Amino acid sequence: MAANEICFMDAVELRDKIAGKELSAREVMSAFLGQIEKVNPAINAIVSKLDDDAALKLADDADDVLARKGPVGPLHGLPHAVKDLADAAGFPTTKGSPLHKDDYPAQDCAIVERIRGAGSLIIGKTNVPEFGLGSHSFNPIFGATKNPYDQTKSAGGSSGGAGAALATGMLPLADGSDSGGSLRNPGNFNNVVGFRVSPGLVPAWPGSHPWIGIGVKGPMARTVRDTALLLSVMAGADGRDQLAYPSDASSFTQPLDRDFKGVRVAWSPDLGELPLDPRVRSTLAKQRATFEALGCIVEDVAPPLWDADEIFHDLRAGMLAAGNAENFARDRDQMKPEAVWNIEKGLAMSAAQLGQAMARQEALFQRMREFMETYEFVLCAVNQVPPFPAEWRYPEEVDGVPMENYIAWMKTAYYITVTRCPSISVPAGFTDDGLPVGLQIAGRFRDDLSVLQMAHAFEQATGFGKVRPAIAG
Amino acid sequence: MAANEICFMDAVELRDKIAGKELSAREVMSAFLGQIEKVNPAINAIVSKLDDDAALKLADDADDVLARKGPVGPLHGLPHAVKDLADAAGFPTTKGSPLHKDDYPAQDCAIVERIRGAGSLIIGKTNVPEFGLGSHSFNPIFGATKNPYDQTKSAGGSSGGAGAALATGMLPLADGSDSGGSLRNPGNFNNVVGFRVSPGLVPAWPGSHPWIGIGVKGPMARTVRDTALLLSVMAGADGRDQLAYPSDASSFTQPLDRDFKGVRVAWSPDLGELPLDPRVRSTLAKQRATFEALGCIVEDVAPPLWDADEIFHDLRAGMLAAGNAENFARDRDQMKPEAVWNIEKGLAMSAAQLGQAMARQEALFQRMREFMETYEFVLCAVNQVPPFPAEWRYPEEVDGVPMENYIAWMKTAYYITVTRCPSISVPAGFTDDGLPVGLQIAGRFRDDLSVLQMAHAFEQATGFGKVRPAIAG
Repeated sequence: MAANEICFMDAVELRDKIAGKELSAREVMSAFLGQIEKVNPAINAIVSKLDDDAALKLADDADDVLARKGPVGPLHGLPHAVKDLADAAGFPTTKGSPLHKDDYPAQDCAIVERIRGAGSLIIGKTNVPEFGLGSHSFNPIFGATKNPYDQTKSAGGSSGGAGAALATGMLPLADGSDSGGSLRNPGNFNNVVGFRVSPGLVPAWPGSHPWIGIGVKGPMARTVRDTALLLSVMAGADGRDQLAYPSDASSFTQPLDRDFKGVRVAWSPDLGELPLDPRVRSTLAKQRATFEALGCIVEDVAPPLWDADEIFHDLRAGMLAAGNAENFARDRDQMKPEAVWNIEKGLAMSAAQLGQAMARQEALFQRMREFMETYEFVLCAVNQVPPFPAEWRYPEEVDGVPMENYIAWMKTAYYITVTRCPSISVPAGFTDDGLPVGLQIAGRFRDDLSVLQMAHAFEQATGFGKVRPAIAG
Repeated sequence: MAANEICFMDAVELRDKIAGKELSAREVMSAFLGQIEKVNPAINAIVSKLDDDAALKLADDADDVLARKGPVGPLHGLPHAVKDLADAAGFPTTKGSPLHKDDYPAQDCAIVERIRGAGSLIIGKTNVPEFGLGSHSFNPIFGATKNPYDQTKSAGGSSGGAGAALATGMLPLADGSDSGGSLRNPGNFNNVVGFRVSPGLVPAWPGSHPWIGIGVKGPMARTVRDTALLLSVMAGADGRDQLAYPSDASSFTQPLDRDFKGVRVAWSPDLGELPLDPRVRSTLAKQRATFEALGCIVEDVAPPLWDADEIFHDLRAGMLAAGNAENFARDRDQMKPEAVWNIEKGLAMSAAQLGQAMARQEALFQRMREFMETYEFVLCAVNQVPPFPAEWRYPEEVDGVPMENYIAWMKTAYYITVTRCPSISVPAGFTDDGLPVGLQIAGRFRDDLSVLQMAHAFEQATGFGKVRPAIAG
């Protein structure tokens, strides 16, 4: 089989072919290593990679297990690279910061344990912004990850390396994490799928601020079904995570087909008030009809998120201040200005302000829950711009409106964060200049399966995810 | 059947007799109303009570349902009074504060919905300390709840009315809530059972600060089995509570018998370092042998809770500051001095300090989890003193050690709070002067069933809960 075919095969299919010995893990690994060698120098998505011999050794071991007819996990033999904010034994967790470039973890974090335990072969890490802050994956250690559709543009972030690696066939699946949009925006910018799950569906361990409650781990892939496959491995309670809750992870491996006839959805690309780049607005506008074609009752209505901005900023700044209060005086010179700004913002906050942000989040959660009793899904932009020049630190204006800080162009993403609703980014077309645009589908709290089903229906109806970047050829 | 026999019957048995029409709901209600009339003037546990005609009307309605052979819930026909911090439609939620004396809620809170839905007949509220702060139930609206074993003493709190009402046969079951020990200490002071469950097992709605995560709702009763019965009604996810998790509530109605042979337990009445009143120390010391007789491997070892005090105070003060920042200037003159002190403490805190308390809580949770891989249970005092004079605001010293604030004598309770472990108070004997002493049994995070099983085994072996107060005769 041609290496290119392997690298762009659906993960479900690739997994089946390895398990069925139609393809050896070595053959698969070789194909991906070749693709990485060819593509990664330009895209810069994968960092801290094993050398090829070590990666092939992992593949040979996986083939040995199959040869001995041992039991194999649902990801057996699939190469995987871990987001460089998450611990994977054997690789540094640099967080894109010189302060952490030699931080080798003692053990896997919970999701990597599960992914490795399911048979994935961990071959490296995927690039992130410094400290994971901001949605553009550049940092002083590894530089910037480039957009596969236009290498002068950003691949987004913070799971930017993951998104670009998927789009270019360097990985079949990827993990990520999302606080303000870090799973969704790299999906959006790279024409792949990124799923911010309900908080607690996927365990986060180790984690220092579970109670702030805005960060989640989640899956990314080129198709919704592949995303669901990885989620089936990642989901489920873990006694080390105070907030992870029991769930039926196997539900995510069932067929995702569902009839959406008569389902009421809120169509709100700009969430009622946010500036949107006209290219995003016009690209998404074409997809309203897709939901009508699926039989949905599509209404132009915005969810009640009027104080989401302040809530998100206060929770985030409080978390950053708490995590950095002790080292900030020492380390601030080695931090990017956006991190310094955000930590200083948090250090100026009172406990009452942080506690009130939590109380306002609870009130917003209840408002959103009531809104979604009427509208099962909210459909909106993932963020407010298409991929922007890679040399920018962030977009300073959107549709003529100045952005007040480095994440203000991400409000469509982080407003949804505050609701705690599961929310997916699914490919939704291209701008006239050929840049990918995703659609964000947010569903009801803890009904992650329905979000996957709706995204699957949209994907089946449109097929944008199957459009490949020029670089893949 | 004699009214006294009805009032002190196990709730499980009473429920069965009503469902089986051996006793009518009216006969049961009449017995409890008579007991309340006889006992409550001295004990002052039940407040905002329905008049007798209205209560009997509820009972008649319950009998009508049975007569029509309608389906009935697991608590059908049992009188119930709701803790006066929780909303029950038709009754004011005074929180023991003049600021709230006329606050009539629009609807039941989540647990009252469930309790009412299970067939309980809500006849009133149970007394609390002002704002639920402190573990002694006195307030400017209703005064102090008195200890059934010595009416010159405190009944504890904040679920003090609930504990005293159970001990005196005024209620068959009671709900409560617990942040620093408010389910456990009234169990302890009243020779009944109070169960602080794992956070999220029982939904809390409405709730303004779920993310601070120290408060839980839970059941109280005279026996462990009755406690489990009420828990089976209260437990389970609710879409309105961001932290409530799915569970098998029916597991709590199964027989609680379990063989504890070979189970390793940490025996640590004073958690290794805390001052204990010698009467508590000597009363509990006698029970070490009970666990040996159950076959447990009993080791004298304290759990690693060295920073629990600071964590608890910071989380609590942050929550209080957030909840009161806006009204404090206006209302402080109408607040008790302990509330003013605690809110002021929180208002002086930074967001980083609150966030760091959360991070330290996470670290403590992980340490405790590892400790409890070796020791399935931690056995300790519920609090550090026996019931104290009702005219005190709080104990100012314990075993000669001055208490630095109004909750310092509760450290054995609130240190366990910070671990997030489920923890029960079960009757464990009496001091030489006849005051009840409870034992605290803390189990592994989210293994609430095992805690009930261990408490049941202890109760079966000792039987202190069956000792009735003199007032009951």
